[in-house]
Amino acid sequence: MFVSLSTDFGASSTAICAGVVHSIAPRATVLVLSDEIGQYRIVEGAMLLRRALPYLPVGVHMGIVDPGVGTSRRPVAVETVRGDVLVGPDNGLLVPAAELLGGIATVHRLDNPDYRLPRVSGTFHGRDVFAPAAAHIALGADLDTLGVELAADDLVTLDIPAPQVGEGELVLPVLYTDEFGSLVLGGERADLSAALGLRELAGTRVVVAWTGPDGEPRTVAVPFEHTYGAVPAGQPLCYEDSSGWLGVAVNQGSAARRLGIAPGDVITLRADQG
Amino acid sequence: MFVSLSTDFGASSTAICAGVVHSIAPRATVLVLSDEIGQYRIVEGAMLLRRALPYLPVGVHMGIVDPGVGTSRRPVAVETVRGDVLVGPDNGLLVPAAELLGGIATVHRLDNPDYRLPRVSGTFHGRDVFAPAAAHIALGADLDTLGVELAADDLVTLDIPAPQVGEGELVLPVLYTDEFGSLVLGGERADLSAALGLRELAGTRVVVAWTGPDGEPRTVAVPFEHTYGAVPAGQPLCYEDSSGWLGVAVNQGSAARRLGIAPGDVITLRADQG
Amino acid sequence: MFVSLSTDFGASSTAICAGVVHSIAPRATVLVLSDEIGQYRIVEGAMLLRRALPYLPVGVHMGIVDPGVGTSRRPVAVETVRGDVLVGPDNGLLVPAAELLGGIATVHRLDNPDYRLPRVSGTFHGRDVFAPAAAHIALGADLDTLGVELAADDLVTLDIPAPQVGEGELVLPVLYTDEFGSLVLGGERADLSAALGLRELAGTRVVVAWTGPDGEPRTVAVPFEHTYGAVPAGQPLCYEDSSGWLGVAVNQGSAARRLGIAPGDVITLRADQG
Repeated sequence: MFVSLSTDFGASSTAICAGVVHSIAPRATVLVLSDEIGQYRIVEGAMLLRRALPYLPVGVHMGIVDPGVGTSRRPVAVETVRGDVLVGPDNGLLVPAAELLGGIATVHRLDNPDYRLPRVSGTFHGRDVFAPAAAHIALGADLDTLGVELAADDLVTLDIPAPQVGEGELVLPVLYTDEFGSLVLGGERADLSAALGLRELAGTRVVVAWTGPDGEPRTVAVPFEHTYGAVPAGQPLCYEDSSGWLGVAVNQGSAARRLGIAPGDVITLRADQG
Repeated sequence: MFVSLSTDFGASSTAICAGVVHSIAPRATVLVLSDEIGQYRIVEGAMLLRRALPYLPVGVHMGIVDPGVGTSRRPVAVETVRGDVLVGPDNGLLVPAAELLGGIATVHRLDNPDYRLPRVSGTFHGRDVFAPAAAHIALGADLDTLGVELAADDLVTLDIPAPQVGEGELVLPVLYTDEFGSLVLGGERADLSAALGLRELAGTRVVVAWTGPDGEPRTVAVPFEHTYGAVPAGQPLCYEDSSGWLGVAVNQGSAARRLGIAPGDVITLRADQG
Repeated sequence: MFVSLSTDFGASSTAICAGVVHSIAPRATVLVLSDEIGQYRIVEGAMLLRRALPYLPVGVHMGIVDPGVGTSRRPVAVETVRGDVLVGPDNGLLVPAAELLGGIATVHRLDNPDYRLPRVSGTFHGRDVFAPAAAHIALGADLDTLGVELAADDLVTLDIPAPQVGEGELVLPVLYTDEFGSLVLGGERADLSAALGLRELAGTRVVVAWTGPDGEPRTVAVPFEHTYGAVPAGQPLCYEDSSGWLGVAVNQGSAARRLGIAPGDVITLRADQG
């Protein structure tokens, strides 16, 4: 059975969770998908899982970005229609990936003390609650034995603004910045096509508009291209990223640093009239 | 057989050691426990091993933070009563974990050239000495063939001040800061209970006192809680961490940065009279 | 079969590539050799592969530092005389390692859509092109089915200046800085012996000369030693590094930061007349 782990813990605490899985399920293949999610960044973690899990084997996938550890937030196992089980806190982290993996089949609360470590700390549920549950599920534990079943629509969902398709403009949130500093936007190519009234975006110039850290409006005009190297090194571009989101990047550079835009900011894309 | 690696090397040099293990013992399960130990921070590495190994399968565990590589410090294999073999430099790194894993059963010096790579460099014993020894032990090599047996009390030990339980105050060292910037202190809940004369700490307010970088005394009063989320985001707390150490953290923030306290500093905890 | 991955992607995008390999070749042993290569640093990546692969099992080794992703640069598989297959972009990254693994046996372009994911993005060929090719090669795919065979001397090679052995001096490039900030130089011990007219370097003092960031010439005299700990903490030394390159390091410190020298700089080593 295949088990993946994605956390905002850094290397060692993530590997301790992997060690718990190896201890309980010695034959599982264990992959650390990420130990580098931005700390407490639930949206970034959710988008990582959504981006990655379609490319991983069907398996048990732990996702932990858990600022509410030890409080009343619920630990859950979310079974997908594809056959995966996503294990983590009920704070929205697991939902976008589950929806992409065919949708949510069942949700169970992780209550059963037999599937926890004997002593559960107040601050490290990755080790004490989520990793043992994931390992037991990988070993074939029946999901009904984990704890009470919950309604799928009872899960906490992420609070991300939807893209707004207007007359000639598209307003959308910055979901996260990737390892290269590229901005991943909460809208798709079809949204931009609809907003601009263009079937084909390649070669179009787009104006990116946002509010700078000083409160002043800023804009930059960029071409819509299929890859970074279509513009000179150091130049910005708009593109469809490898997950199907719209993106703004700088070839061989960091758009986040260059433009001063951060996750959670809202930006507008318009046709370039110039 | 299970082999773990913990180093201050970063990703690639740690993975080269893993590659050596895979080359010699292709069926071993190999886990990088950490490649992110602070460089040359022996105490931090020792505390990582102590915190992690109880949650890993019984196996061979390499620990390498080795500022004395290539000098006269001894390479050793420390067998624990639990059945693990800890492999690394004799500089104190392996001792606290071995003591927690039932205690030290045997110690051998790694002398045998058959269990080293053919050519041993002056600067990369992780690759040339420790990884091949770990792999051969994982394959079942008799510990007596590694090299001469040493007395356990001949091992170098860490120089960490013990917690001082005084009248109404507890003085203790900062062992290390974790990935979130939380301070892990060299004392336990029972020490604080004894110092404050309180059987139950939950809900107590504690004054944390230390000397700032400018030499001036500083204090902050914090509640003793069971988890971060028991205080508002950005607020400090005192708690028992997931390894049983006392800790000082900031909910969704970094106590190390907020308070200006670093590993090796000494702090005092007192009852809040206010 | 053994598969390694080395990228400048950071943790999550590298792990997605590993997930693709696990999906296609579930029994492969997969090692992330590095996800920390400096972004766009092809020479650093090439030197990592050259340094690491001799210590890894014979296998399929993906190397991806690919500023030209999605442009006309060619994706290739380079078979070595040792029996490895190196998979990555044709930008020089794979050549030095292949030469060290016995030399290049064959080169194939990765053209066959059966060994790619069904949909190939413009920006993530690690996931869509290289990982599936690596997995299919690990499963035993005949290299001739990957795509057209290319001449080995048609591969792009790195543009690194050769060491210049002069009368009493050696001029060489800084290839990269390692995790500790040590400078790895593009020349070998024998080059320095030849330049200085010395059969034995141990104990010799060497003058390191370079041009500072301000354009001014700088020098520092350092001993040639076999390991860091042969000089006091904080002191610089010259040595043969664990890959056989000449190096300049600071014991328990960073030579790159201390001396202000960066990859791509050129330095001169001379005998110390003082």
